[in-house]
Amino acid sequence: MSGDAYDRLQDRFRRIGALRDAEAMLHWDLATMMPKGGAVARGEQLATLKAIRHGLLTAPEVGCDLATADADAQPDAWRRANLREMRRIWAHATALTEAQVEGLARASTACEAVWREARADSDFARVLPSLGHLLDLVREAACAKAEKLGLSPYDALLDEFEPDGRSEDIDRLFADLAAFLPDLLAQVTERRAGAARSVEPEGPFPIDRQRAVALRLMERLGFDFRHGRLDVSLHPFCGGTPDDVRITTRYDEADFRSALMGVLHETGHALYERGLPGDWRGQPVGDARGMVLHESQSLLIEMQVCRSRQFLAYAAPVLRDGFAGDGPAWEAENLYAHYTRVAPGYIRVDADEVTYPAHVILRYDLERAMIAGDLQPADLPGAWNEGVKRLLGLEPPEDRLGCLQDIHWYDGAWGYFPTYTLGAMAAAQIFQAAVATVPAIPDDIARGRFASLVDWLRANVHGKGSLLSTRDLLVQATGRPLDTQAFKAHLQRRYLG
Amino acid sequence: MSGDAYDRLQDRFRRIGALRDAEAMLHWDLATMMPKGGAVARGEQLATLKAIRHGLLTAPEVGCDLATADADAQPDAWRRANLREMRRIWAHATALTEAQVEGLARASTACEAVWREARADSDFARVLPSLGHLLDLVREAACAKAEKLGLSPYDALLDEFEPDGRSEDIDRLFADLAAFLPDLLAQVTERRAGAARSVEPEGPFPIDRQRAVALRLMERLGFDFRHGRLDVSLHPFCGGTPDDVRITTRYDEADFRSALMGVLHETGHALYERGLPGDWRGQPVGDARGMVLHESQSLLIEMQVCRSRQFLAYAAPVLRDGFAGDGPAWEAENLYAHYTRVAPGYIRVDADEVTYPAHVILRYDLERAMIAGDLQPADLPGAWNEGVKRLLGLEPPEDRLGCLQDIHWYDGAWGYFPTYTLGAMAAAQIFQAAVATVPAIPDDIARGRFASLVDWLRANVHGKGSLLSTRDLLVQATGRPLDTQAFKAHLQRRYLG
Repeated sequence: MSGDAYDRLQDRFRRIGALRDAEAMLHWDLATMMPKGGAVARGEQLATLKAIRHGLLTAPEVGCDLATADADAQPDAWRRANLREMRRIWAHATALTEAQVEGLARASTACEAVWREARADSDFARVLPSLGHLLDLVREAACAKAEKLGLSPYDALLDEFEPDGRSEDIDRLFADLAAFLPDLLAQVTERRAGAARSVEPEGPFPIDRQRAVALRLMERLGFDFRHGRLDVSLHPFCGGTPDDVRITTRYDEADFRSALMGVLHETGHALYERGLPGDWRGQPVGDARGMVLHESQSLLIEMQVCRSRQFLAYAAPVLRDGFAGDGPAWEAENLYAHYTRVAPGYIRVDADEVTYPAHVILRYDLERAMIAGDLQPADLPGAWNEGVKRLLGLEPPEDRLGCLQDIHWYDGAWGYFPTYTLGAMAAAQIFQAAVATVPAIPDDIARGRFASLVDWLRANVHGKGSLLSTRDLLVQATGRPLDTQAFKAHLQRRYLG
Repeated sequence: MSGDAYDRLQDRFRRIGALRDAEAMLHWDLATMMPKGGAVARGEQLATLKAIRHGLLTAPEVGCDLATADADAQPDAWRRANLREMRRIWAHATALTEAQVEGLARASTACEAVWREARADSDFARVLPSLGHLLDLVREAACAKAEKLGLSPYDALLDEFEPDGRSEDIDRLFADLAAFLPDLLAQVTERRAGAARSVEPEGPFPIDRQRAVALRLMERLGFDFRHGRLDVSLHPFCGGTPDDVRITTRYDEADFRSALMGVLHETGHALYERGLPGDWRGQPVGDARGMVLHESQSLLIEMQVCRSRQFLAYAAPVLRDGFAGDGPAWEAENLYAHYTRVAPGYIRVDADEVTYPAHVILRYDLERAMIAGDLQPADLPGAWNEGVKRLLGLEPPEDRLGCLQDIHWYDGAWGYFPTYTLGAMAAAQIFQAAVATVPAIPDDIARGRFASLVDWLRANVHGKGSLLSTRDLLVQATGRPLDTQAFKAHLQRRYLG
């Protein structure tokens, strides 16, 4: 062994980072390009890479080096934070055996493949065995991590997506929202009853035109096409790596609006990835802070910026020209009416801001029950439909519109869902702070100029990587830890203002 | 350690195979999808994967297990061959240090990226420093392998692409061709002087139509789209893995013929990959035998099948319909005249069968001189142009049409070029044997039925994987080792018949 402990760790984590980047690209390919018959081989590749990465993380010398590297990391704050993040990742990794990691990877890939077909046919029974097997492995992993980290099993899973995220805090914040939102929804519904409906733009909207408009707005927002792409997948996502950001959407030729807003949402994720500190590429401190901030960046772009009157004033002529449209459907105010429509629906990703948290609260409750063993996978469709009835007043006619709609559980991502609504809250809080510091932002948006906002985000969020905890970053950027105030104020202003 | 030595090796090589498959997919992405700015990160990923694979191959326990596994592998011929292939791969790997492997990977990726731009601008000087650095590393590796394998440095490189391939044999075969071809070319040229020129089909040919026609013919030939794709890249290739075969082409809207024949060529590679023995996926004995047989399969499909009168009789109406064409340009005989045109040209991949070997002999001579240190990279353009003058009677007006045209050297593939012409010879010899055994094949081809041929290839070539040496496979399939007889007979029949 040569060099000091910290340098050795940095070398090792550079290699671990490259493996993870390779996995990210293979995941992107799996979702966008891979022919169906490639699934088994791809599962083998991903499981192998994960197992090797796990081996690199859990080698005995890592523990030794972590125990002695503090002195080497001083006095640089970034190096200290890097070491802190290495320890966090190491604690998660060493909680599991290599066989567990490989088993989870294989079961996730296999279950996801079955889910794609089960969802297409709305056939929950087909994916139930794979889901049951995967959940068994996830619960086993959760227990192992719980013991190692001194957390509850659910919080141990959550901690991987959102470092230091705790269900105790989530319960409090969600309870606050749950008390506020039904009332708001009732008021919005009452106020809007009898109001003129927005005019539907008339399609069809050919995919190549939708794509051209999307690319134009992405570029305008600052998406860097030298370092990224836009493609198509069943479930839209932002993947790849900070130097090669791959976002996806899915098109509907009858209606461009959902795909377009999806692209803008993923562009928010992409701006975050691309803005991560370049000096720390491949090191833990150079990574995005966690999924709450990641979702905050996509939702800030989608909800705070792109569904605003200002943005749609800028975008209306772009859309009208892009689709060769004409008439009142293409007026900014009409598009704004569409994009701020409020109506309970079955599908989370199509939900409006007011009813979205109910979708998340449902999933949060269900996944906690499943991890705790209080809900069996076989009972999921019933519990789901009952929850949708209670929270949204709807009865899903089929599981495709119910518990089969989201990829997360079928891909092994348990403990992820709450970050969406925490992200929505953080988005409102961060945007409020940005505008308070740079009051020109709303006017700039109306003129299609996003640099003032994106520069502020780069300086206060993106460029920080994982230097600070989510809490400390929010305190520095917005003056306080995460709360519901800005989100509630935003909803009241937009929907009752 | 558990199980016997052979089982341990098989487990290890399964993992090594999965890593190599992951690299293959990342290479495909690099050439087809990756935005330019992703190059550095991708280089890091590939170098890391290669280094880890090298570490798995060269771990001390591998040598021990290889030394004792013979008894475990008995009596199964596939297991014995698997062990033989493991030893071959191990000998190549242990000749190099991990630093050498990682350095080569990085230098190749970096040089390839510069080459893409240098080629576009026809600017050899731009890529010279990267090429010089890469060649230094390749020569160092060649010497290390030469010592370990008891071969000359050039043969040590060749051996990686074509196991047991030796320049002594190549020299003999190429000398035979070099004595035969100029005469043949002169006769063909004389005989065709004054003959009516083929009629040019009138374009433009939109890319989506070219693609649709290509997909139709691929499917007909037996390409399995559940396990493969067709995409676009600067340099056409067949990549991916046997269960997920990715072939590429590049389109020219003014002329569909080159892209289409390129697709059919890569389809030949794809049929080989897809036909490899499924029971041995991920094991060395399940891999393609070497590049001579690989090229034989692409050239068998392209040259023996798809440029034949029989195939073009079947394909002519497919092309005419696909491009909504009309008139004499679309008649089978006219297409045959085009596809059997003979004319010396600058570009290897566009060359006809008669002049193609000269392109290969040039590259073979130059790369041997560069590996031996007798030719400096700075002198490459001059030596190239002089060789083209001597062998083909042409003077390349710019390096884009000269020494910058092929990716191989710039991507670190030295010792690969001779396999193209050896493959052309093997293709003629194998096709001759197939038709001798199944005389219906030519008539089937004329009716667009390829199963009789492909089934024969599956049984006699594809499905053998690396069970036999190239020599033994050819003896079993064709009754003799590789020679020039069938190739020369084919050329005489087609061009002077």
